[in-house]
Amino acid sequence: ARRIKAIRGRDLHVRSLDWQLEGPLRMLFHVLDEEVAKDPKNLIVYGGTGKAARSWDDFEAIVSSLMTMESDDTLVIQSGQPIAIFKLDKRAPRVVMSNAMLVPKWADWRTFRELEARGLISFHQMTAGCWAYIGTQGILQGTYETIGYAAERHFGSLEGRLMVSAGLGEMGGAQPLAVKMLGGVALIADVDRRMIERRINTAYLDAWTDDVDKAISMALAAKEKRQATSIGVLANAVDLLERLVREGVTPDLLTDQTPAHDPLAYVPQGLSLEEANKLKASDPDKYVSLASSSMAKHVQLMLELQRRGAVTFDYGNNLRKQAFDAGVEDAFKIPGQMEFLRPMFEEGRGPFRWISLTGEPNDIYRLDDVLLSLFERNARLARWIRNAHKYVKFQGLPARVVYLGYGERALFGKTVSQMVRRGELNGPMWFGRDHLDSGSVASPYRETEAMLDGSDAIGDWPILNYALNTASGATWTCFHHGGGTGIGYSIHAGFGMVVDGSELAEEKAMRVFTVDPGSGVVRHAHAGYPKSLRVARERGIRIPIMD
Amino acid sequence: ARRIKAIRGRDLHVRSLDWQLEGPLRMLFHVLDEEVAKDPKNLIVYGGTGKAARSWDDFEAIVSSLMTMESDDTLVIQSGQPIAIFKLDKRAPRVVMSNAMLVPKWADWRTFRELEARGLISFHQMTAGCWAYIGTQGILQGTYETIGYAAERHFGSLEGRLMVSAGLGEMGGAQPLAVKMLGGVALIADVDRRMIERRINTAYLDAWTDDVDKAISMALAAKEKRQATSIGVLANAVDLLERLVREGVTPDLLTDQTPAHDPLAYVPQGLSLEEANKLKASDPDKYVSLASSSMAKHVQLMLELQRRGAVTFDYGNNLRKQAFDAGVEDAFKIPGQMEFLRPMFEEGRGPFRWISLTGEPNDIYRLDDVLLSLFERNARLARWIRNAHKYVKFQGLPARVVYLGYGERALFGKTVSQMVRRGELNGPMWFGRDHLDSGSVASPYRETEAMLDGSDAIGDWPILNYALNTASGATWTCFHHGGGTGIGYSIHAGFGMVVDGSELAEEKAMRVFTVDPGSGVVRHAHAGYPKSLRVARERGIRIPIMD
Ligand SMILES: NC(=O)c1ccc[n+]([C@@H]2O[C@H](COP(=O)([O-])OP(=O)(O)OC[C@H]3O[C@@H](n4cnc5c(N)ncnc54)[C@H](O)[C@@H]3O)[C@@H](O)[C@H]2O)c1
Ligand SMILES: NC(=O)c1ccc[n+]([C@@H]2O[C@H](COP(=O)([O-])OP(=O)(O)OC[C@H]3O[C@@H](n4cnc5c(N)ncnc54)[C@H](O)[C@@H]3O)[C@@H](O)[C@H]2O)c1
Repeated sequence: ARRIKAIRGRDLHVRSLDWQLEGPLRMLFHVLDEEVAKDPKNLIVYGGTGKAARSWDDFEAIVSSLMTMESDDTLVIQSGQPIAIFKLDKRAPRVVMSNAMLVPKWADWRTFRELEARGLISFHQMTAGCWAYIGTQGILQGTYETIGYAAERHFGSLEGRLMVSAGLGEMGGAQPLAVKMLGGVALIADVDRRMIERRINTAYLDAWTDDVDKAISMALAAKEKRQATSIGVLANAVDLLERLVREGVTPDLLTDQTPAHDPLAYVPQGLSLEEANKLKASDPDKYVSLASSSMAKHVQLMLELQRRGAVTFDYGNNLRKQAFDAGVEDAFKIPGQMEFLRPMFEEGRGPFRWISLTGEPNDIYRLDDVLLSLFERNARLARWIRNAHKYVKFQGLPARVVYLGYGERALFGKTVSQMVRRGELNGPMWFGRDHLDSGSVASPYRETEAMLDGSDAIGDWPILNYALNTASGATWTCFHHGGGTGIGYSIHAGFGMVVDGSELAEEKAMRVFTVDPGSGVVRHAHAGYPKSLRVARERGIRIPIMD
Repeated sequence: ARRIKAIRGRDLHVRSLDWQLEGPLRMLFHVLDEEVAKDPKNLIVYGGTGKAARSWDDFEAIVSSLMTMESDDTLVIQSGQPIAIFKLDKRAPRVVMSNAMLVPKWADWRTFRELEARGLISFHQMTAGCWAYIGTQGILQGTYETIGYAAERHFGSLEGRLMVSAGLGEMGGAQPLAVKMLGGVALIADVDRRMIERRINTAYLDAWTDDVDKAISMALAAKEKRQATSIGVLANAVDLLERLVREGVTPDLLTDQTPAHDPLAYVPQGLSLEEANKLKASDPDKYVSLASSSMAKHVQLMLELQRRGAVTFDYGNNLRKQAFDAGVEDAFKIPGQMEFLRPMFEEGRGPFRWISLTGEPNDIYRLDDVLLSLFERNARLARWIRNAHKYVKFQGLPARVVYLGYGERALFGKTVSQMVRRGELNGPMWFGRDHLDSGSVASPYRETEAMLDGSDAIGDWPILNYALNTASGATWTCFHHGGGTGIGYSIHAGFGMVVDGSELAEEKAMRVFTVDPGSGVVRHAHAGYPKSLRVARERGIRIPIMD
């Protein structure tokens, strides 16, 4: 196991002296930097066991390939292992990869683990194997957009509004800061004091108490004063909701990020953390049965607050399903998060991101300004940029993530390319996005849940997205299986694009930044979303079967 | 429903006057020509319900897209429906498609049929949706290669050898002619007189009788005289094998192409065709039970002949499995057809094919001569060409299929490109291949059964093959699901490449004809096949992790 540090500076390390090869090398090192990766010794970047390469031998072979390849060579990677180098041409991608894919009938964790143990495949989540992870900023921004869109739609803005949730873990910990950035008040329960303190120490959470009544009055006072802040409460989510219902306090927004997907991780009402840990060890069956009733009650309380007017949604933790299985028949009256992501996907909007490959924070800040001037009418974006500048600590190479849509990505990309060419930035920039995007994923329990036409399980779309980015000459392109919802449940695609100031890279980037969100617009237009059809018509995407 | 005829001649129909767009148009018409397609009214080309386009509206939209696109436009097709046109550049493919793909957990026929009924997906087999089907020549040549390789390995040549099989249907009907082309004697049973007569009428079969003893003595006499011929016998396969065992006649090669995959299609021993049809209607359960015992006996007889020295193999009709389920424990002592295809796949060899886009048969014949001079040391290839010239009737546009491997495809492609440029052929040529090829398919019950390292179910390989051909700029590229073994059981990729004499097309073709078989060599090298590793080393394919 090596210790990897992100590579910075303007000196090139690859023999070709070509940023199209130096770029992937730096992004591979970046995602394994210990500021970024969850478990770098085991090459794990994030999300359970999402790896950047299959093994350290494979890592070394990828590195030495990139170091010695010529500018028209293409490296082929199969589940994190470099399996061939072919000579194509400068116009083609420099790396193509397919990770964790199985023939459908064999697509389950058991088969996967067997093949993994034999060294034939490995798991790469979405942005881990595609060398596109940027640390917690990604989660923060995703949460910001989801809650921000919900607020915009229902209240205009989150200012003077109260959002209630629970869970301050890896994902859930982004909630208080995202709410604060949006100008609202967050009241979040967690049963684990250490998680609360950790969020206080990293400034993701402003204040906390172990007194539920006090927490509620603090929150209501802040709401009254329209003060943007966040309050943690050391309590079970169910206790907090029970008190809200009893006191007649209805939050404006309501959700949950306890680990409900795993009944042995969810802490049942009535048990302290210590008691819970003991019971889990001594009598797991009893634990699961307690957790199950607790989750049923949890959802019943959410439904009651929803009836009283709280805008309520499920945040991808499977809480509804657990409650439904425990007998709460109307659990699915609570909509999923796609309720708020879908409208963005409809216009090809999704988590677009970039990194300064030379490691220069000022390049990010300069581009923050460029964004603000290009998209000044997008208030949520402007608010994000100003807040990100203030709160986001870079991990590894400096990065920024923003939701941009069809047209916007190409406009911004072109501006950046010209700035690189004119020497107005310290050096080349990398662009990419999460696989969780508008046209790049088929995942019927998450991103493609409840498509208007019932096409949730159709898998052609991410394949076509992958083909279009590959045909466009993105610096690298990735096809993955199992990200987010696990082996069997999703297929998805991503890319990395190095904008180095050359004409060729700019041409490639313009194609990629057009076809990539374009495939999302088209996917939604075909599913019958009227806004997508309008966007396609207005912005000139040709759809033969509808012309 | 339109009536489609293949387009011939040198006049261009597309507005761009570009063969890179005229080519796909002509291939779409070709596969739907009634000489080629099985059920052109329903857009079905072959293989059950393998379609060329989802519906006639989609067909029309594809046609008018190709007619009006510019030379740097790319058409995107999702399960036979044209969903977008994006402007890329001349260097990119002109069409990319993904057909019949589902998210793995949803990948079964029931879900597929539901989504199909809602107009969201359709089935495209391997070469139907990819516009690369060439009629029965493909089957004939595949059979020729499989049997030819088996003979070469075990006997040096098939001359003076007897092959016994059964089934003269859509696939099986190719057996007698393939054996004759290889210089051997074929003795084939079929229970249906009309099928036998049809094969006689099309010259796929030389003679027939309804007397098993007579058929055996005719076959032995021809073997004695080393006469290349084929004999049909109107009999049940089990009756024929029983007689061979009793008389002590051991064939040199033994296989079967009765429809054993479907117990209601397989005719049980002891029933005439009429009796079988009656019983099927009146008591299907009894029919299936009779078929099952008959198949058990069938395989026991094959095992006995195998013990006596017959080179015996299963030809992909699932007969072994049926017998195994009926109690024949050692049924899998009979190897599958991959026994003879695998060694070819190991060096990237597989069914490469081309078509004269102007419809000129002489272009095919000229290229037959070119092949003979380029690969004069390949005796099986030379024999195929000479025989194909004699026996193969063109269907739709004139075509030729040949097994060529890594290096050979590029050499031949370059020669053809230069002939087109110099005007030595009537016009542009199309190149493609079956998806059943060395690096392009993952199908654990057929093409990737029993891989040396157990990687049968790994799905990354066809994705990478698709990516490489797309990155290389093939005229069109296709990713499909479910061909051959059905929804859930296979994923695979293909392409079409129009060689129009231009420098650009030649560059693209050289890349495609290199990376495509190259990905097969690499796939097998990683699975541990020594020959593949040797081929990679000798012919300069770089494999980073093994260097
Ligand atoms: N957007 C999405 O769709 C998406 C993405 C990732 C994760 N998730 C889901 O969100 C959930 C949370 O993820 P995470 O990474 O933050 O999990 P985590 O395990 O890191 O943190 C969970 C937190 O919840 C607390 N907790 C447990 N039971 C509680 C209870 N009854 N009341 C109050 N607090 C309780 C724990 O103390 C812990 O701090 C998971 O179910 C995960 O699957 C959804
Ligand atoms: N290479 C491959 O892996 C591959 C490819 C395609 C098809 N197949 C399989 O090959 C088999 C044959 O395919 P096909 O398209 O020729 O089928 P088909 O239905 O067109 O023809 C089958 C023939 O077998 C005859 N028959 C049935 N039972 C018989 C018996 N007991 N004895 C003698 N004759 C009998 C029928 O009369 C018919 O002529 C199928 O099981 C098919 O799935 C294998």
